[in-house]
Amino acid sequence: MMESIITKVTVSDVRFPTSLEQHGSDAMHTDPDYSVAYVVIDTDSGSLKGFGLTFTVGRGTEIVVCAVKALSALVIGKTLEEIVSDFRGFYRLLTNDGQMRWIGPEKGVIQLAAAAILNAIWDMWARAEGKPLWKLLVDMDPRQLIRCIDFTYITDALTEQEALDILEKANKGKQEREDQMLKEGYPAYTTSCAWLGYSDEQLTQLCSAALGEGWTRFKVKVGADLEDDIRRCRLIRKMIGPENTLMIDANQRWDVNEAISWVSSLAEFRPLWIEEPTSPDDILGHAAISKALAPLGIGVATGEQCHNRVMFKQFLQASALQFVQIDSCRVGSVNENLAIMLMAAKFKVPVCPHAGGVGLCELVQHLILFDYISVSASLDNRMCEYVDHLHEHFQSPTVIRNACYIPPKDPGFSCEMLESSVQKHQFPHGEVWRHVLGQKHSPII
Amino acid sequence: MMESIITKVTVSDVRFPTSLEQHGSDAMHTDPDYSVAYVVIDTDSGSLKGFGLTFTVGRGTEIVVCAVKALSALVIGKTLEEIVSDFRGFYRLLTNDGQMRWIGPEKGVIQLAAAAILNAIWDMWARAEGKPLWKLLVDMDPRQLIRCIDFTYITDALTEQEALDILEKANKGKQEREDQMLKEGYPAYTTSCAWLGYSDEQLTQLCSAALGEGWTRFKVKVGADLEDDIRRCRLIRKMIGPENTLMIDANQRWDVNEAISWVSSLAEFRPLWIEEPTSPDDILGHAAISKALAPLGIGVATGEQCHNRVMFKQFLQASALQFVQIDSCRVGSVNENLAIMLMAAKFKVPVCPHAGGVGLCELVQHLILFDYISVSASLDNRMCEYVDHLHEHFQSPTVIRNACYIPPKDPGFSCEMLESSVQKHQFPHGEVWRHVLGQKHSPII
Repeated sequence: MMESIITKVTVSDVRFPTSLEQHGSDAMHTDPDYSVAYVVIDTDSGSLKGFGLTFTVGRGTEIVVCAVKALSALVIGKTLEEIVSDFRGFYRLLTNDGQMRWIGPEKGVIQLAAAAILNAIWDMWARAEGKPLWKLLVDMDPRQLIRCIDFTYITDALTEQEALDILEKANKGKQEREDQMLKEGYPAYTTSCAWLGYSDEQLTQLCSAALGEGWTRFKVKVGADLEDDIRRCRLIRKMIGPENTLMIDANQRWDVNEAISWVSSLAEFRPLWIEEPTSPDDILGHAAISKALAPLGIGVATGEQCHNRVMFKQFLQASALQFVQIDSCRVGSVNENLAIMLMAAKFKVPVCPHAGGVGLCELVQHLILFDYISVSASLDNRMCEYVDHLHEHFQSPTVIRNACYIPPKDPGFSCEMLESSVQKHQFPHGEVWRHVLGQKHSPII
Repeated sequence: MMESIITKVTVSDVRFPTSLEQHGSDAMHTDPDYSVAYVVIDTDSGSLKGFGLTFTVGRGTEIVVCAVKALSALVIGKTLEEIVSDFRGFYRLLTNDGQMRWIGPEKGVIQLAAAAILNAIWDMWARAEGKPLWKLLVDMDPRQLIRCIDFTYITDALTEQEALDILEKANKGKQEREDQMLKEGYPAYTTSCAWLGYSDEQLTQLCSAALGEGWTRFKVKVGADLEDDIRRCRLIRKMIGPENTLMIDANQRWDVNEAISWVSSLAEFRPLWIEEPTSPDDILGHAAISKALAPLGIGVATGEQCHNRVMFKQFLQASALQFVQIDSCRVGSVNENLAIMLMAAKFKVPVCPHAGGVGLCELVQHLILFDYISVSASLDNRMCEYVDHLHEHFQSPTVIRNACYIPPKDPGFSCEMLESSVQKHQFPHGEVWRHVLGQKHSPII
């Protein structure tokens, strides 16, 4: 099955009109239409397929689709065996094409497109092995894992040998941790209660329901108006009580000094972290913010828009974050996230993945399960984001029990969508968009 | 004329088959086909147009074209007056659209596309004023210049007031510097002699011809093979003698420690700078390289793939470069380059622009003239790259005299291409490409 030849890469522009109800709204993305560039890879065997995606928030998804098409030429004609037997080489082929790297390199649209394709390849590999992706990774020989990683530009922070040592050290207790995960699941936190566009009434109602369901960790969007933030944080902290955990997220709204003073004003509500206080590119800025907030007991979290391992390397070297928020689509899929998780382990910084959107929870649960079982071996200060919508469009949606991600059992990377959902939400000609765009005065375009 | 309404944004995929003769080849881009996404903005006045472009190296140009189309919706229907009366606001509109910013933000394909459009707007503005762009900038009130800049995320390094102070301080002697430039031109260096794919014979011949034309500053591509580099640097240094200037350029080929040891091996040829020693994202890496090479008298230069002002800010804060290589297309056009030039002035680091490619010389000469006349007021350790090909495709090609850029006099930003060149080089259906792609065993695809 591994020797089936890849014959076709299909990519679709799939969008959900979430802006109509302000789901996902934050200080910088006020009207997101959660979307994906959705990739299906076909082989000549017929039975072996791969499904992958990258997440976007509406307009511009067609540009990512265009980039996936451009990269497809590098994939078609190869076999899965060829690819995974030199996955590092294939990764470089995709991310370092002598002409296309100019429009990155390894950042922005071209990196999102590479992620969508690589996610589909990893999905295909896991299906070929009849395992969920996390289990494929957990069972893989450490030397083979290392050969999936492009160490270019990070050897000053992590060598291949150091990476191997981390994986081999974590061999101890691996089976126990896998059993524990299968029984209890991986701890999650919820962002569903407090999007910026939600009213206080919505927030109260959602928070109360979440407490009832057993949630203990809550994230609130901040950054548009300080008085609003104080009121909302007070409301949430009062509802969840002093023992539960609160995080705040500014989605890059501030300059460096503004971030420090604004967050200091929210310190009384004891947030565990401030997420994305400023530009995702500003390593030194995050370092300054981290240093200023440390005495207040507030950490800095970032990563959902951190575009590659070279940036994460520096965030770690500069002590610019205290929580590494990997994303399953922003960087180069599993390959690059392996590098990032291993660097985080070396620098002893916890990984707390970014999720939500469309399919991000489905994807990233595999990575964080692997991180716990095979890399970090710790749950201290660790948890994975969860947002409760759009899961109904997936073949194998995430399962949450007692506010924990229950490890998926179906083979693959969990991002195969329902064919009917893909059809209905195709932009702009699917049924849903014909309806939305047909309405006059639509807020969408 | 400023009130003419923008009615149309046309964008073309224009490519030159430069890979056939190894022009432009370097350690990472072994087969570039120099290309542009070429933008023409039309207004309802008919006579007022704007021409802009962004540079790429072949495959993937269609993705940038797609991004320009997506951004065009934000431009059509506006007047030039509306745009330039709140240029900062328009800049943010283009770079911070609540949905499209996700696929950047301010980096990669979407930033290249924004640059192409903004370059065309600046061209249109200069045409409307009947001035070459450099002169429009030199004559502009400092307060109006400041209002073109988005200071978001850089106020910890440069405030509006500091920027204004720099411009006002440089008022002294401005007229003299403008006269000097008109008479002598701005000093240039040549990269045309030593592309990586050139043989020693080609190199000797081109270098000898350049010396004859009065060139005194030469750049050599390095990074693929150390023995080759030593041989080529020795050859060039011998030809140009001890007094002339040599620079070396690795185009991101190395990891941090590798860069330090490789460049140390070339120190005997006394290069002024090593350009792009490692990943363009690696601020801390460049800082380590700068520190290690300082005792050898070798500086670090980078910038052509530095994607925005936030990155340049950190390179300056971390003393990670000694030469700031602005590019006219990588970042957000004149608006963002104003921020970068002003930060460089504050940190007292010389600006030495990246040029070459297609149209980069034509564009960036305007920026460096403005830098000298209105910002830095210095030529110390400063020069602008020049590459001698593809100029024949422009309406107002650069003029070099005694190895200096002679200030352009035609109104605009100098990047209007000949209609016949655009037609012939359209990819893939223009005459040139029908011919190249029609040949069997073509090296291009």
